[in-house]
Amino acid sequence: MDRLIAVDWGTTNRRIYVIDEGVVTLTERDALGILAVSPAAYPALIETLRTRHGDHPVLLAGMIGSNRGWRDAGYVEAPCGIPELAGALRAAGDRIWIVPGVSWQANGCGDVMRGEEAQLLGAIAAGLAPARALLCQPGTHCKWAEMNEGQIAHFVTSMPGELFALLRNHSLLSAQLTGDVTEGEAFAEGVEDARSGHLLARLFGIRAAGVLGLRSDADAASYASGLLIGADCAAHAAGRTVHLLADEKLGPLYARAIEQCGGTVVMIDSHAAFAAGANRIWELAR
Amino acid sequence: MDRLIAVDWGTTNRRIYVIDEGVVTLTERDALGILAVSPAAYPALIETLRTRHGDHPVLLAGMIGSNRGWRDAGYVEAPCGIPELAGALRAAGDRIWIVPGVSWQANGCGDVMRGEEAQLLGAIAAGLAPARALLCQPGTHCKWAEMNEGQIAHFVTSMPGELFALLRNHSLLSAQLTGDVTEGEAFAEGVEDARSGHLLARLFGIRAAGVLGLRSDADAASYASGLLIGADCAAHAAGRTVHLLADEKLGPLYARAIEQCGGTVVMIDSHAAFAAGANRIWELAR
Repeated sequence: MDRLIAVDWGTTNRRIYVIDEGVVTLTERDALGILAVSPAAYPALIETLRTRHGDHPVLLAGMIGSNRGWRDAGYVEAPCGIPELAGALRAAGDRIWIVPGVSWQANGCGDVMRGEEAQLLGAIAAGLAPARALLCQPGTHCKWAEMNEGQIAHFVTSMPGELFALLRNHSLLSAQLTGDVTEGEAFAEGVEDARSGHLLARLFGIRAAGVLGLRSDADAASYASGLLIGADCAAHAAGRTVHLLADEKLGPLYARAIEQCGGTVVMIDSHAAFAAGANRIWELAR
Repeated sequence: MDRLIAVDWGTTNRRIYVIDEGVVTLTERDALGILAVSPAAYPALIETLRTRHGDHPVLLAGMIGSNRGWRDAGYVEAPCGIPELAGALRAAGDRIWIVPGVSWQANGCGDVMRGEEAQLLGAIAAGLAPARALLCQPGTHCKWAEMNEGQIAHFVTSMPGELFALLRNHSLLSAQLTGDVTEGEAFAEGVEDARSGHLLARLFGIRAAGVLGLRSDADAASYASGLLIGADCAAHAAGRTVHLLADEKLGPLYARAIEQCGGTVVMIDSHAAFAAGANRIWELAR
């Protein structure tokens, strides 16, 4: 039987896919991200997966392949595609492989990803995005990837999600940022203000608006999110078609901001993309 | 005898000036900012000042006049000058006055300052800056004030200092940002990168540069500071003459960034500016 257990093993969560002849037959998600697992515990966790889903090959992607995970699987340099990833898998036990990350460098600058590469290349392998496209993966750290000829040609990581969390948890603005983030008017206002620039001053404007009673603090979190996501989208999405790989929370926010910045959105199922990527990597590697 | 005790009473520190016929005869600085003082303790602290420096009038500026300080002294709306501040002092006891803050509003946007106004207007009163000028006061929150006809016409607050502290203390980048900040090559590189935009991605670039070995982590704090101060200066200082009211730590950093962004710097003694402002406010008020 031609079955694969693929795991998108991230920092705080992991998502397990059982893939049967290229078709996902089962997915599971739990909180056993690398922060919750000591390196010595990985073999037993994988044995548990095999007990549950059968004694099949296991393909691991994501932060499990970092120096904070199980085994450092290194980086493949962009531009690269599925064959380059398949050729650089790190063996980690009996029919267990870890997918490397992808790095990019030019003129003394650089960027890195780990875990996103399987999704990005899988989106194209599954026909969910064309071979030449701009793909966006929102998150704590958001990836903007330029795909060309089916490869990851270049990418940029920004950190709107982490910055939002810092502001919400530790800043002068914390007390104002307790509300829910919704893609309503305050969010749109934040995106608009981000487009006119100077983020550092717009953020303090949240404090000033509170003091002067210009905006309800209930809207402050949505406005702040609009500022940060807006700055991100203004820098990348203007006039572009963006293929968006996002969850249910960030998807609508990024979609609204991209459109407000003059871009066009195509939503992609990120789980289908990951499964297709993992399956294709495995097909080429074995 | 025509003597005034003026205090720039901030969040974490206060600086005391004894002014004799307009001439500063003594200054003191201590850590009794408003965070270290309960509201009930202010009268005794002021009595101590008078015991030490004579039973003179006391003029208080800064966060002591906020709702977290002793008495809320409110805001005077910009444009405004020393006469408007002098006319809106809040009495707080026997010959004790608190200087109000300044607010600015237009088109649903706004900004506030508290404590900076005495310095800004004092710089002009003392002839340290012309009546029409751009003044900059770096800090946790940095003020950029457009002065016109000797008044505060408009101002913007940005938060590079607070953002730097958030990144250094609580972010994914924390471990890389432990070095000293100096105005050397890494700082200049940060300013240059800030000028080409997309701060949120440049910040993540610090992580990538560490992982890929493109920059020594010893330089990361200087680079990050260059990014944040550079973004601030690029937004305000290009092609302008900036009168800079700064301490010994931030002064050289802002001076370098302003010049790199195509501005010209005039350094101003911020203590002399505050004393002149406080003295002039008191002269007009009594």
